[in-house]
Amino acid sequence: MIRGVLLDLSGVLYVGRQALPGALDAVARLGQSGIPIRYITNTTRSPRRMIMEQLRAMGFSFPEGDVYTAPLAALDYLQARGLTPYLVVHSNLIEELAGVSSPAPDAVLIGDAGEGFTYQHMNSAFRLLLEGAPLLAMGSNRYFKEADGLSLDAGPFVAALEYAAGVRATIIGKPAAAFFHAAVASLGCAPGATVMVGDDVDADVIGALDAGLPAILVRTGKFRPGDEQKVEGRAPVLEDISAAVDWILQRL
Amino acid sequence: MIRGVLLDLSGVLYVGRQALPGALDAVARLGQSGIPIRYITNTTRSPRRMIMEQLRAMGFSFPEGDVYTAPLAALDYLQARGLTPYLVVHSNLIEELAGVSSPAPDAVLIGDAGEGFTYQHMNSAFRLLLEGAPLLAMGSNRYFKEADGLSLDAGPFVAALEYAAGVRATIIGKPAAAFFHAAVASLGCAPGATVMVGDDVDADVIGALDAGLPAILVRTGKFRPGDEQKVEGRAPVLEDISAAVDWILQRL
Repeated sequence: MIRGVLLDLSGVLYVGRQALPGALDAVARLGQSGIPIRYITNTTRSPRRMIMEQLRAMGFSFPEGDVYTAPLAALDYLQARGLTPYLVVHSNLIEELAGVSSPAPDAVLIGDAGEGFTYQHMNSAFRLLLEGAPLLAMGSNRYFKEADGLSLDAGPFVAALEYAAGVRATIIGKPAAAFFHAAVASLGCAPGATVMVGDDVDADVIGALDAGLPAILVRTGKFRPGDEQKVEGRAPVLEDISAAVDWILQRL
Repeated sequence: MIRGVLLDLSGVLYVGRQALPGALDAVARLGQSGIPIRYITNTTRSPRRMIMEQLRAMGFSFPEGDVYTAPLAALDYLQARGLTPYLVVHSNLIEELAGVSSPAPDAVLIGDAGEGFTYQHMNSAFRLLLEGAPLLAMGSNRYFKEADGLSLDAGPFVAALEYAAGVRATIIGKPAAAFFHAAVASLGCAPGATVMVGDDVDADVIGALDAGLPAILVRTGKFRPGDEQKVEGRAPVLEDISAAVDWILQRL
C-alpha cells in the first residue's frame, strides 16, 4: 500500500524549460487521487520561489509548500541545531538563507555557488573549519550540464575543503537518507509506504531504497540504458511519469 | 662521499624575511669548498627573480642559476613533452611561465594561484581535463601560514579538479622524485652522492630518501619535536644549517 509520493523535478516532470509529454496530466491525476505528494530537488542555484515560477510557466500548478529542496532541508538542519553558517552559495540563494546567516558563523554551508566560489570565500570557510565548525554541503554532485558544456557543481569545492581541513562534510539533499526522511515526515506517513520517483538511478532511486523507501526509476531525463541493472529486483523501471502514476494509483 | 648538495630555502636559510643565525656563514663556507649546490623550493607565488631579490636583501649572494623552483621544474617538464598548458597560477608567476602558455592549451598546470582560483578558471581547467588534458600540479600542499592565519595552498584546488574529472594529478616539485632527480641532474652527480638538507620531514627529507638521496633534517623552520622519529636510522637530525654544513664538509 502506497500512502505518499516523492517526485523528483528535473528529468521526471520536465527537461530544460519544457514539461515532458504526459507529465502535466500525470501530476493532475495523482493530485486528484488525494495522496500527499512532495516534489524534491537538489538544485541549489535557485530558491523555491524561482523554481515555482519556472514550474508555473510550464503549466504545473501545485502549491509551493509541496516542493522540498536541498536548501530548505539545510535551513531545517541548521534551525534544528541552532547553527548560523558561513554561506558559500549562489547569489540567487541568499534571499532564502538570509535568516540563518550571522556575522559570527559557527558552521560552513556549501551549495553550487558558481561564481561565488572565490578564493576569499573558500579561505574564510577553511579557517572556520580549522576552528572546528562543521562542514555542511547541500550536495556532492561533481558537475552539471550547461548550454555551453559541463560545469563544476558544489562537490569539487566540498572535496577541496575536506582535503584542506582534514574533515568530512555532512551531505544534505539527495542521496542523504535524512533528506528523504525529512520529506517523508512532512507528508505524515512512513518511509516504507512512500514511493520515490526519479530519473537519477544513484541519487534518487538507490538513495531512496537505502533510506527504506520503495522507489521507481523512470526512463526519462538523465536515465541511461544500463541504469536499470543497478536496481534490478529492487525497483520497477517504468517508461515515464505517466506510467509511474498508473503504477501508484493501482496500489493506493 | 658527498659530491653535491641540495638545500631547501625557507626554514633552512631563513624564516620570514630574516636569515637564520649562522646561515650566511654556513652557505659561504659550503660555497668555498667548491661542491656544487642547488637551492630548491616549492614556492609558486613568486618567480625565481623575486626569490633572488629577497635572498639578496637578506645578504645571500649565490648565483640565480643555482636556485631551482617548482615552477622551473614545471617549465622543464612541459618543454620536454611539448605541452602548452592552461595556467591556473598566481599573477606573479605569469612572467616566468609566459613562454609555454597557449591559446589552444593541451594540459592544465596548477600552482598556488591565490585570488587566481576563480570559478571561471577552475571551470575552464575542468573542461580541458574532460577532453583528456593531463593535470599537472606544482605542489599538493594543503595550506601555508600568512600573517593573519592559515591560507589555502594549491593542494585543495588540485583535489577539487581530481574529484570533478575523475583524474589524478601529476605532482611536480617536492616530494616528487622527479623534482629531486632534475635538481641532481643539473649538478652532474649521482643521486646517491647528493645530500638534501631540509626542515620539512615529509616533503624534503622523506621525499629525498624515497628518491634515493641521502638527507639531513634540521631543527629549524617548520621542524617539530617528534619529526626526528619519522626518519630514525635513515637520516641524521642536526641543529641547523651550520651543523649540516659541518657534517657535509667532513664527507667530501
